Amino acid sequence: MGQWPDRSILKLLGVEAPIIQAPMSGFSTVEMAVAVSRAGGLGSLACAQLTLEQAKDALAAFRRDAPGPVNLNFFCHRPPQPNPAVMAAWHKSLRAYYLEYGLDPDAPPPTANRIPFDETFCALVENERPEIVSFHFGLPEPRLLDRVRATGAKVLSSATTVAEAVWLEQHGADAVIAMGYEAGGHRGSFLTTDMAAQPGTFALVPQVADAVSLPVIAAGGIADARGIVAALALGAAAVQIGTAYLFCPEARVTAAHRKALEAATDEGTQITNVFTGRPARGLINRLMREAGPLSPLAPAFPTAGGPLLPLKTKAEAGGVGDFSSLWSGQAAALSPRLPAGELTRKLAEEALAKI
Amino acid sequence: MGQWPDRSILKLLGVEAPIIQAPMSGFSTVEMAVAVSRAGGLGSLACAQLTLEQAKDALAAFRRDAPGPVNLNFFCHRPPQPNPAVMAAWHKSLRAYYLEYGLDPDAPPPTANRIPFDETFCALVENERPEIVSFHFGLPEPRLLDRVRATGAKVLSSATTVAEAVWLEQHGADAVIAMGYEAGGHRGSFLTTDMAAQPGTFALVPQVADAVSLPVIAAGGIADARGIVAALALGAAAVQIGTAYLFCPEARVTAAHRKALEAATDEGTQITNVFTGRPARGLINRLMREAGPLSPLAPAFPTAGGPLLPLKTKAEAGGVGDFSSLWSGQAAALSPRLPAGELTRKLAEEALAKI
Repeated sequence: MGQWPDRSILKLLGVEAPIIQAPMSGFSTVEMAVAVSRAGGLGSLACAQLTLEQAKDALAAFRRDAPGPVNLNFFCHRPPQPNPAVMAAWHKSLRAYYLEYGLDPDAPPPTANRIPFDETFCALVENERPEIVSFHFGLPEPRLLDRVRATGAKVLSSATTVAEAVWLEQHGADAVIAMGYEAGGHRGSFLTTDMAAQPGTFALVPQVADAVSLPVIAAGGIADARGIVAALALGAAAVQIGTAYLFCPEARVTAAHRKALEAATDEGTQITNVFTGRPARGLINRLMREAGPLSPLAPAFPTAGGPLLPLKTKAEAGGVGDFSSLWSGQAAALSPRLPAGELTRKLAEEALAKI
Repeated sequence: MGQWPDRSILKLLGVEAPIIQAPMSGFSTVEMAVAVSRAGGLGSLACAQLTLEQAKDALAAFRRDAPGPVNLNFFCHRPPQPNPAVMAAWHKSLRAYYLEYGLDPDAPPPTANRIPFDETFCALVENERPEIVSFHFGLPEPRLLDRVRATGAKVLSSATTVAEAVWLEQHGADAVIAMGYEAGGHRGSFLTTDMAAQPGTFALVPQVADAVSLPVIAAGGIADARGIVAALALGAAAVQIGTAYLFCPEARVTAAHRKALEAATDEGTQITNVFTGRPARGLINRLMREAGPLSPLAPAFPTAGGPLLPLKTKAEAGGVGDFSSLWSGQAAALSPRLPAGELTRKLAEEALAKI
């Protein structure tokens, strides 16, 4: 068995294997992160849909059971100004679905909640000292980022283009996640909105590796040992894997989502903005087909999700994922379908055997 | 220096290095194919825009100068029924450009010419016995394909999805080119038109390798030795490289195209149908921005190109590529920018050194 070719990333992240379990807000769990940590990878806790108390509890549970460092992940979007006209038009466009599900289309819709990294979470980081803090959608404003860095935490963020990777290097990241077009969930894009020009992992990783001096973490389309070996060959120092962890029993995945994942094919996903207002890759379902995949009507992130909540709740109660974000990358079918710890160990061992 | 891990593909193709110079109709040349062949790779002659006589001449020139086998490449689309209303609407949508360039917008536009593989070309194959015959857009009808196979030629074709790869295996291909989303030029798609669901190379190659028992040739985003090593790690037996060969002095590339290639970034291309009616990846230019990238107005392949010809000719005469198909994959910036022989040798040597 070989050795990981880049020891410095292992030191930077404080792990034995250069495998990061992707933080998947709403889908990953403390149990998953703990299992990954025990297997030598980097366990991640996604905080974008947690209250401060929930985040504290998750971190405490991780610290109690996990031997390794933690990656605390935050979104750093700017919450949009309310736009009642846009929201009303979006809500109205969903009217037929409300009627179909026996819901009152004229009741005020609920509000979608994704909390960006803020003063409160920054204080959490200062108090709890996670070893790794990762961001999605760029980086927080400098005064907050400076406070995070002052704790000694290593800072990661995602780049979907070379320009974003260079920006992250210039603005204080310690490593860049090169997130290829194949990746599931929200695109990390923050300097571009052109989804038609997003580079695939195969093209992105070496171009990012050439453009920055930071370590590059490849993400997108990696679900087995072949992908890890290929990512390292392209110039990555480590990988971040999401979709393969959705198959784990530790994942918080609805029955409809799990069923769709089990049946996933290479051409079964698209990038859509209809669930949250920001582009994200998911398994093609009814709402994406009928209202998307990219709709000019979708209100700004994260507010688009509000009027979908009653539909999603009602449909999911019947085991139907027509209005749910069934996030998945393009390589779901490669996933080994094991518990998170076994998966991490298998990926690491098989990759090492090929290096 | 290592050895190529899969010797059987070298035997199948009759080459020393598992590198195929992509046939690039209108852009690759006999000189390029000869240089690649001399360097141990597979030289390809694209016939889609050649008359029978031109194809014969190209093949004769290749046979005179090249030591290795030849890959004769054909499109196998079905020529569309003429649709004057659609063509008139498309022509009319270009009216402002015609006026801007001092062209008569009411003159009947020229016809675009891409000849599919037919009786005539099949006879050429039977007479000239190319070692490899490759197709784009699926495979020709069975009675023609049978005749090609009866010559002993090995048959290749491109798959942009797992389903297409399986179809090619079932219908008589000897190897499958897994053409990822990153690839430049026309998508090989023939069972799907959903460009938003096309998998990236990183996700496609291993899923195709798992689904078929044929050798897999990876294409899309490969422009340096890192890409070759990664493609083999993902399960490919060989690679097909296009864009990197456009930088060669042997390429037939306009000044505008070359300039755009030199300046290419990872996010500088999109898949567009405005140039020919079929989706293809090219460097974003004015027509793509203003009429595309995917236009419902574009007439069926290859007829969309007809009304563009006068604009293209006039603009190119001024060094402007606004109406030209500036084909490129997403990894143009990685291209070593060497003559075709040196490029092939460098790619092979550097990849072998990493294996």
